[in-house]
Amino acid sequence: EVSFDPKEHQHLRYNPLQDTWVLVSAHRMKRPWAGQVEKPPEEHVPRHDPSNPLCPGNTRANGEVNPDYDSTFLFENDFPALQPDAPDPGSDQHPLFQSKAARGVCKVMCFHPWSDVTLPLMKKQEVVKVIDKWAELVEELGPTYPWVQIFENKGAMMGCSNPHPHCQVWASNFLPNEPALSDRCQRAYYQKHGEPLLLQYARQEAEKKERVVVESSDWLAVVPYWATWPYQTLLLPRRHVLRINDLTTEERGGLADIMKRLLTKYDNLFEISFPYSMGWHGAPTGPSLKEDNSHWQLHAHYYPPLLRSATVKKFMVGYEMLAQEQRDLTPEQAAEKLRNLPEEHFKTRGH
Amino acid sequence: EVSFDPKEHQHLRYNPLQDTWVLVSAHRMKRPWAGQVEKPPEEHVPRHDPSNPLCPGNTRANGEVNPDYDSTFLFENDFPALQPDAPDPGSDQHPLFQSKAARGVCKVMCFHPWSDVTLPLMKKQEVVKVIDKWAELVEELGPTYPWVQIFENKGAMMGCSNPHPHCQVWASNFLPNEPALSDRCQRAYYQKHGEPLLLQYARQEAEKKERVVVESSDWLAVVPYWATWPYQTLLLPRRHVLRINDLTTEERGGLADIMKRLLTKYDNLFEISFPYSMGWHGAPTGPSLKEDNSHWQLHAHYYPPLLRSATVKKFMVGYEMLAQEQRDLTPEQAAEKLRNLPEEHFKTRGH
Ligand SMILES: O=P(O)(O)O[C@H]1O[C@H](CO)[C@@H](O)[C@H](O)[C@H]1O
Ligand SMILES: O=P(O)(O)O[C@H]1O[C@H](CO)[C@@H](O)[C@H](O)[C@H]1O
Repeated sequence: EVSFDPKEHQHLRYNPLQDTWVLVSAHRMKRPWAGQVEKPPEEHVPRHDPSNPLCPGNTRANGEVNPDYDSTFLFENDFPALQPDAPDPGSDQHPLFQSKAARGVCKVMCFHPWSDVTLPLMKKQEVVKVIDKWAELVEELGPTYPWVQIFENKGAMMGCSNPHPHCQVWASNFLPNEPALSDRCQRAYYQKHGEPLLLQYARQEAEKKERVVVESSDWLAVVPYWATWPYQTLLLPRRHVLRINDLTTEERGGLADIMKRLLTKYDNLFEISFPYSMGWHGAPTGPSLKEDNSHWQLHAHYYPPLLRSATVKKFMVGYEMLAQEQRDLTPEQAAEKLRNLPEEHFKTRGH
Repeated sequence: EVSFDPKEHQHLRYNPLQDTWVLVSAHRMKRPWAGQVEKPPEEHVPRHDPSNPLCPGNTRANGEVNPDYDSTFLFENDFPALQPDAPDPGSDQHPLFQSKAARGVCKVMCFHPWSDVTLPLMKKQEVVKVIDKWAELVEELGPTYPWVQIFENKGAMMGCSNPHPHCQVWASNFLPNEPALSDRCQRAYYQKHGEPLLLQYARQEAEKKERVVVESSDWLAVVPYWATWPYQTLLLPRRHVLRINDLTTEERGGLADIMKRLLTKYDNLFEISFPYSMGWHGAPTGPSLKEDNSHWQLHAHYYPPLLRSATVKKFMVGYEMLAQEQRDLTPEQAAEKLRNLPEEHFKTRGH
């Protein structure tokens, strides 16, 4: 009888945040790749480009002129998917043709006045400014909207059309699918086990160590046991924290540190500015601000598309779209690779 | 008061097969696109390439020589994500670290001996052969496996690494996430409304007409009311059919016809060989073969990535991955565009 080896033997793993399973078939990394290769990210981005609508002092699509900002800069998305005042599609509907009103706001936040820096290359205090702004946004929009989604699409491969470092914030009058599912799962776990799912999970991972990428006294970044994207990570505070605006000054400093360390490792993996989509999930806001949300724990998801190299991504297609997500290396293999990378950025090495 | 116009006003639509919502923000099509453009699909594929492992008479990665096939050709995937004999990861597990055995088989099926044809360019009788083979596979693998996923990744953009027309079949000892969810939703609908969800849906769409792309006496292809991909379609029989192997000879002929019509329109949209992932969902097999599955209706999903042109796709990234899927044109707009395209393929026009 052969004994089970996760690196050799396909198996399923359970994702307790989504109540789904992922197929882990690590032996698939052995197959040769003859498929599509991507353009590697632009190596040279000018610090200030007079034609880039996100740079300080430049004019945007709607004719507005950006201030000469020297830190973060926030403005309304010029092509918002959510606007505050859309009319209601009306009720009285067949169960197979249901619609609902969607209202909200979409904002863009530049991280820095320079186009040629990214979070791992920014100074710690500059990253803290970004975190403070995120907290401020949840504070401001939370009372009006049940969900405030902060997310960053980084790199052309992730549909980002502007190299200037920035993120987006979409706040909505509805709880979107993903956080609604995560809310249900965390609530059920809390009711059954009497402890927040992700608090228990972080403690276990900090002991096991095999999936830890970087850690500090108050933060932990792991490749989750149930990761679907090859180098997906989950970033968590160790303390029970509901929302990003609940973080203390010290925890914000710690977050800036661990983000810089994690993102430096990402960049060092293939020696490129590593593409990903990331976003924050915390307890819902709006009416939930007045309810008990002890089952929630603040966390960020990082979903990077690359699999084999700077130019070969994981295609989440056919089987993944129609049946189930499948991964080609174990989360432990991915974590080990990232963990063993230097914490000095390849661009500043030897400087 | 402004009255509601789905083309102008963002709103949510309900997907009854997945119990989720999609954000429809059709006004977003107005924003300019400065992001990544894709390489258009290869225009010239040689009919027979001596170095292509899928062509008749050629040698594959594992040293096996393909027969000189003149119709469909089926073989075991040389790098299968599912193998029949993986050991069990073992039980006694923490609720946050659950794993399960995964067993199955992965097969590849070439549609035709020529590399330079695709389904819409094949003769009707050749497409019928493909359908017969699909039915045979479900018949053969169904008794052993609870789920037999037939899917096609078409085009390099969809991770397909070989231009020779082919699909895959992955059969598993587990019911994957997507069909498990669809099963739950169809069952609940049937219990509540006494009629299969998709049978009722097809009838309604055939009456409403606004989302119909192509139809015949026994088949219907629509851009579903809840479509997430820009030109997504749902292909359905009009009769209550549980599985693809239950189709009559006549219905298989009708299916070949409607597939050729639908895929010709797809190719004509941007005058390229249109990329997509597609797959069949029918009632589960294995132990379910002995159970009542009246709530199920056979259907195929087509998920094409393109949005604006042959080279600009829809990026399902940040907000979509972390919060909720969002679309940039209404399903009715997409259906109208496809419906109005000619049924003669752009490659054979005027011949
Ligand atoms: O099996 P293939 O064609 O080698 O691989 C392709 O389809 C698979 C099933 O959808 C995916 O897991 C892979 O990411 C994709 O590249
Ligand atoms: O808002 P952007 O950067 O123009 O657009 C990008 O992010 C959005 C939110 O994830 C996606 O809907 C778009 O497909 C993507 O191209």
